[in-house]
Amino acid sequence: MKIQVGTAYYPEAWQKERIILDAALMKKAGITCVRLGEFAWSHMEKTDGIFDFQWLHDAVKIFAEYNIKTVMCTPSSAAPAWLCKKYPEVLRTGRTGEKAWFGVRDHTCYTSAIYRKYLVRLVRKMAEEFQNEENIIAWQIDNELGCSRFSECFCEECQNSFRRFLRKKFRSIENLNKCWATTFWSGEYTSWDEVELEGYGENMGAGRTLASAEFRSANGKDFLSIQAKEIRKRIPHAVIGTNNLTRYDRYEGFAGMDFAAEDFYPTAKTPAAEAVFRIDLYRGILPGKSPWMLETPPGPGAPLQDLTKLFFWLFAGHGYDHIFYFLWVNHPAGNEKTHKTVLTQYGQPGVLYERISSMIHEADKLLEGYDTLPQVESSTALVYDYHASWIYTMSFKGEEVAYTWQQRNLHEALFRTGYTPQILSSKHDFSPYKLVTIPLHAHVEKSFAEKLEKYVKEGGVVLMNGRSGMYDGYSKNLTESGPQHLKKLFGMEMHDGLEYASQGYMPDYPPACQHPGEKEKHHIVAEGNLNGKKVYGCADHWVAGIKLTTAEAPVKFRNSIYRGMPFLTVNRFGKGYAVYCAADMVDKELMREIVLYCESLAHLPEKNIPENVDISRRGKLLFVTNFNNKDITFPTEYKGKNKMGKALQKGCFKLKAWETAIIELI
Amino acid sequence: MKIQVGTAYYPEAWQKERIILDAALMKKAGITCVRLGEFAWSHMEKTDGIFDFQWLHDAVKIFAEYNIKTVMCTPSSAAPAWLCKKYPEVLRTGRTGEKAWFGVRDHTCYTSAIYRKYLVRLVRKMAEEFQNEENIIAWQIDNELGCSRFSECFCEECQNSFRRFLRKKFRSIENLNKCWATTFWSGEYTSWDEVELEGYGENMGAGRTLASAEFRSANGKDFLSIQAKEIRKRIPHAVIGTNNLTRYDRYEGFAGMDFAAEDFYPTAKTPAAEAVFRIDLYRGILPGKSPWMLETPPGPGAPLQDLTKLFFWLFAGHGYDHIFYFLWVNHPAGNEKTHKTVLTQYGQPGVLYERISSMIHEADKLLEGYDTLPQVESSTALVYDYHASWIYTMSFKGEEVAYTWQQRNLHEALFRTGYTPQILSSKHDFSPYKLVTIPLHAHVEKSFAEKLEKYVKEGGVVLMNGRSGMYDGYSKNLTESGPQHLKKLFGMEMHDGLEYASQGYMPDYPPACQHPGEKEKHHIVAEGNLNGKKVYGCADHWVAGIKLTTAEAPVKFRNSIYRGMPFLTVNRFGKGYAVYCAADMVDKELMREIVLYCESLAHLPEKNIPENVDISRRGKLLFVTNFNNKDITFPTEYKGKNKMGKALQKGCFKLKAWETAIIELI
Amino acid sequence: MKIQVGTAYYPEAWQKERIILDAALMKKAGITCVRLGEFAWSHMEKTDGIFDFQWLHDAVKIFAEYNIKTVMCTPSSAAPAWLCKKYPEVLRTGRTGEKAWFGVRDHTCYTSAIYRKYLVRLVRKMAEEFQNEENIIAWQIDNELGCSRFSECFCEECQNSFRRFLRKKFRSIENLNKCWATTFWSGEYTSWDEVELEGYGENMGAGRTLASAEFRSANGKDFLSIQAKEIRKRIPHAVIGTNNLTRYDRYEGFAGMDFAAEDFYPTAKTPAAEAVFRIDLYRGILPGKSPWMLETPPGPGAPLQDLTKLFFWLFAGHGYDHIFYFLWVNHPAGNEKTHKTVLTQYGQPGVLYERISSMIHEADKLLEGYDTLPQVESSTALVYDYHASWIYTMSFKGEEVAYTWQQRNLHEALFRTGYTPQILSSKHDFSPYKLVTIPLHAHVEKSFAEKLEKYVKEGGVVLMNGRSGMYDGYSKNLTESGPQHLKKLFGMEMHDGLEYASQGYMPDYPPACQHPGEKEKHHIVAEGNLNGKKVYGCADHWVAGIKLTTAEAPVKFRNSIYRGMPFLTVNRFGKGYAVYCAADMVDKELMREIVLYCESLAHLPEKNIPENVDISRRGKLLFVTNFNNKDITFPTEYKGKNKMGKALQKGCFKLKAWETAIIELI
Repeated sequence: MKIQVGTAYYPEAWQKERIILDAALMKKAGITCVRLGEFAWSHMEKTDGIFDFQWLHDAVKIFAEYNIKTVMCTPSSAAPAWLCKKYPEVLRTGRTGEKAWFGVRDHTCYTSAIYRKYLVRLVRKMAEEFQNEENIIAWQIDNELGCSRFSECFCEECQNSFRRFLRKKFRSIENLNKCWATTFWSGEYTSWDEVELEGYGENMGAGRTLASAEFRSANGKDFLSIQAKEIRKRIPHAVIGTNNLTRYDRYEGFAGMDFAAEDFYPTAKTPAAEAVFRIDLYRGILPGKSPWMLETPPGPGAPLQDLTKLFFWLFAGHGYDHIFYFLWVNHPAGNEKTHKTVLTQYGQPGVLYERISSMIHEADKLLEGYDTLPQVESSTALVYDYHASWIYTMSFKGEEVAYTWQQRNLHEALFRTGYTPQILSSKHDFSPYKLVTIPLHAHVEKSFAEKLEKYVKEGGVVLMNGRSGMYDGYSKNLTESGPQHLKKLFGMEMHDGLEYASQGYMPDYPPACQHPGEKEKHHIVAEGNLNGKKVYGCADHWVAGIKLTTAEAPVKFRNSIYRGMPFLTVNRFGKGYAVYCAADMVDKELMREIVLYCESLAHLPEKNIPENVDISRRGKLLFVTNFNNKDITFPTEYKGKNKMGKALQKGCFKLKAWETAIIELI
Repeated sequence: MKIQVGTAYYPEAWQKERIILDAALMKKAGITCVRLGEFAWSHMEKTDGIFDFQWLHDAVKIFAEYNIKTVMCTPSSAAPAWLCKKYPEVLRTGRTGEKAWFGVRDHTCYTSAIYRKYLVRLVRKMAEEFQNEENIIAWQIDNELGCSRFSECFCEECQNSFRRFLRKKFRSIENLNKCWATTFWSGEYTSWDEVELEGYGENMGAGRTLASAEFRSANGKDFLSIQAKEIRKRIPHAVIGTNNLTRYDRYEGFAGMDFAAEDFYPTAKTPAAEAVFRIDLYRGILPGKSPWMLETPPGPGAPLQDLTKLFFWLFAGHGYDHIFYFLWVNHPAGNEKTHKTVLTQYGQPGVLYERISSMIHEADKLLEGYDTLPQVESSTALVYDYHASWIYTMSFKGEEVAYTWQQRNLHEALFRTGYTPQILSSKHDFSPYKLVTIPLHAHVEKSFAEKLEKYVKEGGVVLMNGRSGMYDGYSKNLTESGPQHLKKLFGMEMHDGLEYASQGYMPDYPPACQHPGEKEKHHIVAEGNLNGKKVYGCADHWVAGIKLTTAEAPVKFRNSIYRGMPFLTVNRFGKGYAVYCAADMVDKELMREIVLYCESLAHLPEKNIPENVDISRRGKLLFVTNFNNKDITFPTEYKGKNKMGKALQKGCFKLKAWETAIIELI
Repeated sequence: MKIQVGTAYYPEAWQKERIILDAALMKKAGITCVRLGEFAWSHMEKTDGIFDFQWLHDAVKIFAEYNIKTVMCTPSSAAPAWLCKKYPEVLRTGRTGEKAWFGVRDHTCYTSAIYRKYLVRLVRKMAEEFQNEENIIAWQIDNELGCSRFSECFCEECQNSFRRFLRKKFRSIENLNKCWATTFWSGEYTSWDEVELEGYGENMGAGRTLASAEFRSANGKDFLSIQAKEIRKRIPHAVIGTNNLTRYDRYEGFAGMDFAAEDFYPTAKTPAAEAVFRIDLYRGILPGKSPWMLETPPGPGAPLQDLTKLFFWLFAGHGYDHIFYFLWVNHPAGNEKTHKTVLTQYGQPGVLYERISSMIHEADKLLEGYDTLPQVESSTALVYDYHASWIYTMSFKGEEVAYTWQQRNLHEALFRTGYTPQILSSKHDFSPYKLVTIPLHAHVEKSFAEKLEKYVKEGGVVLMNGRSGMYDGYSKNLTESGPQHLKKLFGMEMHDGLEYASQGYMPDYPPACQHPGEKEKHHIVAEGNLNGKKVYGCADHWVAGIKLTTAEAPVKFRNSIYRGMPFLTVNRFGKGYAVYCAADMVDKELMREIVLYCESLAHLPEKNIPENVDISRRGKLLFVTNFNNKDITFPTEYKGKNKMGKALQKGCFKLKAWETAIIELI
């Protein structure tokens, strides 16, 4: 077993001699993969229909000679100058008609028929050229789709494509009017050609807002698919993926792909929980398939503090078997010429090269005895549903921040209690998990409700919160009490509720119970008893008025117009429990108590892990990461052999600042 | 006597059965009015020339059956999709030609002939349809005119309309050049078609800046008037108003209307003085006519602290006889779907409904014995002159903030001393008031100066400040010393003056006299003696060099290049006094002392009211509002009977946190 | 000898009587120059081809009668309405096609052939009209070129002009592709018409970024030159300059001109070092020629603290023989109607007039005995190279701030040690200086390297820092170690290096050595020994890994991945020393120690001057300025006679807060 270490490389910028030198240096360092071709359209197709792949073949060959495999990329995010000049209509169009321009990247429209025609021709050529190239281990489609300063196009082709998308979905304009409740602000349509795409955040809470987001996501997916299709036609066995799919539904975008890849640029200041969230997110997209890290910097935190090794093992310990450093050496010109690189800016091995090199060799040796490592196991899950979350986040611009906060707050509480969750879509299988947490799930489909009922009935524990199940599938307010389809499962109904954004979107309180009198002047406060422990904390953003049916309420509101009413409800249902929290946002300490309580309901024993320590397990190997900038010691029941470092000593872990320990468990 | 309580309702979104249910719930709660039709153009005119008012007739009838009156609104701020598609020229045009788009509201041009043609046809239809509908008690034209993200249109029709406005005003281009002193920066025009409207803040201090603002205001007024005219043609007795007229001259906008309506969304954090300013502002627009509160939220401060009742009585106590809650229930979709509502989000009575309901019934009972309540009386006034203030505020962008601050600073000083003023235009009658305060009045018309002279001569006291009377009517600097036309009245002349924005625009100092040495390093400081009391404080933003003629100067500059020169001048003139303050901005504590001094000159006895308490009187009823989040007690000479609460006890007011007391005076 | 005091005046706004009055008041005050015509195109050319200069002749004559000379200005930054209406193509064009509009100034394109045709015709007319006017002492071309909210034009004429500029420079598109390394992000061009100008900060670090800046600068220069040429054709002896050339290469812009003029608006809060930097900057542009202060406000700091006199003598003491106050009296309308003026806003003499008047008379008397004053002498220099700095600053947007900070940090260290430098381009002669400091010089030309070698060999000391010599002339990363061409001179090579922007761009630390442990957690720290003194401080932004060859390293990194490696390198080379500092940014205290050390290497004795005191010398006169808002006393070895004040007493300087002393040295 070896963690495949790769790096991004741009042979179009270099002479053959330099490429050979680089390949030799990579090999020496233990690097086994390169990403090639990513933005090189202008070098592959010099001008309309005149292709040149020789340089790329040469590069693949050179690397092959050094046992370095290629990840071949399609350059769809960097259309060449001649194409933009010849067909200005391929450039993205802003809200009021202004066109993007050639000069950076991501300047073209995902919908444009001409652009797609040229792109498909190019990808077909690439597939033809490289179909027999055995040194190519994978294909990357595009790069960071949707991540652009020209992210939204409003050209007529996009508008028409959107209209086709709507016609297919709604069939008649009358039905669209009804589903969207367009009576608001004279929004009724009389014909399809009146309907236009919406810019992000323009018409908050409308069906058109949601449909625009869904169209953008589907259109982006389609833009990836037409490329993947061309590759598969010629190379049926091709391993295909893409990286860092922002803004769109990741589960939709990666469906049908062979791997999901993350681009993650941590620093020494990245909080431990945030880092773990980011890497867990991509592991959950295609469950069971090892996620790839396609971009991460050499020397995060350097020059002051070099954390390359810490993050390398964090990725590996969380399931990543491919880790690519971005980048090998700076391109001599352009936006990324000052990025951190494996070589120095002069293209020579320097301090970082030496460190990465010895790290890889150490890793290779450490993993020598293992054929393969199984994927990370997790006993808890966190549900990420784009459609449901969009319904909430697009109700008002700021809610996007609020939703992310909630999602992260739940994840962090699980991380802090040592039960880092698998992040899943609502369609994934929940049966492997003992506790499923669901941050605000604005629209609850009937089938999802049934799935949850079955899961709990058979012994699972569910924790849900806030404005869940209060909206229909078109983003409209429901006229029945929430949570729709789930009132029986949770044994209560939310019959009242009010927004309350007391202090912005980010409550980050000190530990509870300090000066409760003062706190209650400015915050909505809940208190109660969980597992014999007094708990107390703040609720924020939106709070519910709840009526219990079969549930109990161990925590209640202490102030506000809902004083004395349930805050946390717990319902025994079949063999499991359904727990609901009557607020969109809950302070971190209280959420930790709630999660500890849910873990006890799920019979998950309490772990006592220090702050900012991550523990993950793959088969026999245990990875322990100390994110603290100080030495720590804590007792453990793990038994095994120190494979890296000497952290495990007499029932204790002793880790230095920023140290990672690897233990082979007995 | 009953305070008419209303609510905004959108029957176009609901089925008949739901409307009946809502009417019944309203009636039960004591609600007696609804606003209908506000944005419903697409529902009234389904497509070009095809009208449908049956649904609206039905709604009016249903409410009538429950004794609920209708305020009928014209939907001019929400043009339908078919109209925008058919005539894109009706959409607003940005500074450099970009068009607004259909999708929210306020996307059309106030000038467009086509838009006006379609609008007038619709309003005529509405008037015809509802001319015999006795259940309509009032008409609302448009909604919040000028309050839009596309607030300024630059289309050719606007430009041409602006040119006609200018031709009428200036007659020749030579005269315009002269009035505007266009020699600045090659600004001279040779023909009318060279003159263009200016965007807000573009060409500070120019005549064109002022004229653009005046045109926008007049054009907005015209946009309201053409609608009002259509209604009056068919319904001569119609009671017509509009709401929350921002950006334009409110006195111009409401002239000829029957009521002025405010939209005010307070929270628990809204300072008392700010709340009172906002509601006083609309009472003063059409003096003697009760202002309407057309939008205010149910549950301000809720869920933590529900202040519905406090604000209800504050409005009523300050003259509002119609109070409309925004809104009854959320529209299922769109920008306002998470607004606070009387019903819960599910359309059911919840905590807020119950509270509002009992509040209305208590109010109805309390006011049973009164036929009507006279308007609030006030012995002080504050002058708000848009034309004069624009001359100042458009000299530089930030000055708008500065002017508002001054205006609010004067108002707050009067509020804190218990003499909350009537806010008036310079055209209103000043004779009912003993003290008239005039925040920076940049251009003083001769007739206004004469009016002030007469007012003071007959015993009035005037307090004015800053750069008053230093500009002509076209916003030009005068070349004579200020304050123009008023040097005799104030017994001095401002022969010098300099800008000094020391610490931004918002001095909010601690009580005076602390560490005066330190303060004088960074601030211009004035000190003196008023009514035997030492006063000391800071002057800011702009200070004057003054020469006394007949006035005295009880307060002088203590530092700066004007050291030793007059800061506060007082001139006995006839039976009254004219007081001038030689700075644009004065710190709050010093301003309070100056106002107390002016009140003593006006023989207004000193009241001793605690901070953040409002007292207003309508006839025999006294309304006392405690804005403090704590209980308070203070002595009073008022005698009477507690009508609500038990606050008046043995010569003292004892009020709980946020409590309102109502007393029937003996 | 007399310092010529002038003021900006706009006769186009005033009647003849008023002009006469103003001339008389100026004369009385000792003012001897006026700037006329600056923005008066619409008054000179009333409409296409109809010229009127009579009013301007009259004004020149009136002033002449009062012995007041004229600086005649071309009004090229204020095109009249009729021209913009007739030829909309002269208006600037934004990135996506939007046009600027008539209404303020600087709304036209520097490239437009039509605009240039009209402009040249006008300037020719002006030259013809005034060629025999002896009262004109100088000509000012344009005003503050490039300083506009529409600063970048993207019209087709600009694009084509840029392409011609590129063709001339690169000859073939292949060569351009190679020089720019356009392989990055598919940036390769196939024909000239694909290449477009870039907006500021758009494509960071690309050759096109640099070329766009160079084109803008050259184009601006050309815009000045075509005007200067017209004037010189008719008036060969004309004295020609321009003022406050922002955004462009000042050395290029002023080349061939007769004087360089600064516009500087200090306040009482302007730090002493900043003020001195600003005025030194313009003195260095045309070495040996007295710079002009064409705009500075009367009463900086007033009304609280009037510092007119302090700045007047600071300018004079630093070489300025012409000082113009902006402005005499406000134009009645427009953007500058509230500017500070010599007269009051009412056009009358006020406090400032009296103070300026007496100041001028005092100055005239003081300088009576001197024929002329020689220029300021300086023994140190600071190199400002626009081309080299652009390569750095355009690598990333924020770097512009970083570069300015470094430049200012070096200047401030020299100022604080009493060796205020001459600011020079890399082309100027360095031989008069003992120490040359060179803030980050991204691209080092071979000829510049040779010049430095020669300079050091002959005894000079050079101090350089950061990413110097790491880029080629097209902004590309070099593939050899830095500093290119200078490794021998500095006796080391920078073989490694990494960005590290720890705390934003502006380290402003407290004096070193406090809590060093804490500091090292967050900062890269260097320590060592200079001249027997322990030094310690922070390095930031970018740090280098250096290998010594012949140099020594008295200061080394104390932490980071470069721990123990050289931070400050010193190389004896010929008779001099070459010192290098391995960071882009260094904290202020450490930089002061480094500069003190370099001064000692250059045999410049240590001066002990208090903080915020400036000392400059012109011939026999010594100017001492106390920028502190408190009295100070310090010992001195200067001997001489107090010409202004009584500061020099028994080997000590005793200065009051904000006092300036002038000493005639013995």
